[in-house]
Amino acid sequence: MRIALLGGTGDVGEGLALRWGRDTDHELLVGSRDPEKARDAAESYAAAVADAGGEADLKGFANGMAADRADVVVLSVPPYHVADTVESVADVLDGEDVVVTPAAGMKRDDDGFHYHPPSAGSVTALVREAVPDPIPVVGAFHNLAAGRLADLDADLGVDTLVLGDDADAKGTVSRLAEEIDGLRALDAGGLANAAEVESVTPLLVNVATNNEGMHDLGVRFL
Amino acid sequence: MRIALLGGTGDVGEGLALRWGRDTDHELLVGSRDPEKARDAAESYAAAVADAGGEADLKGFANGMAADRADVVVLSVPPYHVADTVESVADVLDGEDVVVTPAAGMKRDDDGFHYHPPSAGSVTALVREAVPDPIPVVGAFHNLAAGRLADLDADLGVDTLVLGDDADAKGTVSRLAEEIDGLRALDAGGLANAAEVESVTPLLVNVATNNEGMHDLGVRFL
Repeated sequence: MRIALLGGTGDVGEGLALRWGRDTDHELLVGSRDPEKARDAAESYAAAVADAGGEADLKGFANGMAADRADVVVLSVPPYHVADTVESVADVLDGEDVVVTPAAGMKRDDDGFHYHPPSAGSVTALVREAVPDPIPVVGAFHNLAAGRLADLDADLGVDTLVLGDDADAKGTVSRLAEEIDGLRALDAGGLANAAEVESVTPLLVNVATNNEGMHDLGVRFL
Repeated sequence: MRIALLGGTGDVGEGLALRWGRDTDHELLVGSRDPEKARDAAESYAAAVADAGGEADLKGFANGMAADRADVVVLSVPPYHVADTVESVADVLDGEDVVVTPAAGMKRDDDGFHYHPPSAGSVTALVREAVPDPIPVVGAFHNLAAGRLADLDADLGVDTLVLGDDADAKGTVSRLAEEIDGLRALDAGGLANAAEVESVTPLLVNVATNNEGMHDLGVRFL
């Protein structure tokens, strides 16, 4: 399968590229607005995977080119960039593609981090509004600490919650998630349930901040 | 320590009474608006603890009497009853007491359960507004499945998140939580971080609903 990581030079994109690069044979297309930056990142990720004993199929492209070639398009960009990133690639998406959104809206104040969704109700809902209608959107990978994901020496042993209204697309993304060693995919229902999933991201930061020895936290349901 | 469980005939109150009854020597005061109902519940909980090989110090009282005698007052009532329950016992609370709130506001629609806080921003914030100012409020026990808590054969192995602005009160409640076998208390920061904690409750229901074989879920941070 061909997976595009738009904004793949950022930390979540890096983590997913390294994990899929080491643990699967998928063709990984690192996207960036700057194709030179994307190529540099792809080269550096491939070297990190090789250091970990793997062999990754990783190449860098401009976001539009990566999206055009991919079957699954991951919007690994900050929440305030999801709408314009989708707009920049909307022409090359087709009904066979699946768009995946891992972003959660947060704001920080003196007390800690708080869930701060866009007016659509969640970042996932914002992506659903931005992506042309027949193309399925799936929410996943929201609650993974980027630093732990990108550290190939770190065991994951955590869950990721998958949201979607299209069962086939949700199944595809769940399988991709479970191909990552130590990651379990759980179904959290339809896109309308996204706010409760995205809210876990600021919660993880608050728990890490307030408990000694805890950092790069994930969550497990049991 | 004397712990009052107001609304202690409900499912969360039952679970906490059984666990503290079996795992600790604390004096447990089951409260209800109807003292007869409270006495019946206390008797039945004591019998269940005895069946599990424990010996609980459990008695039933009207809510006001239970709150008056207690050091720690747990508002184990539905979210729409926290304000009037606090009001009904406010006269007997003093600055040595700690009020604990485990409730989370939820609503259900066709997609699943959603976090639905009161206008105060969270149930925890609503309790803070209702409890007289010098008395500390602590949020805890939000994300525990009542059925699992009340099943003394079930291992917990889960975390509870503790919220509060008074370090001493938060410490007291964290210790009480950790005295329950298999329960770990984690600090989630101040009361202002309550919405992200309460949001986990509907999330747990959605995950249980959508994944075969999962029920009475809890959460573990790792």
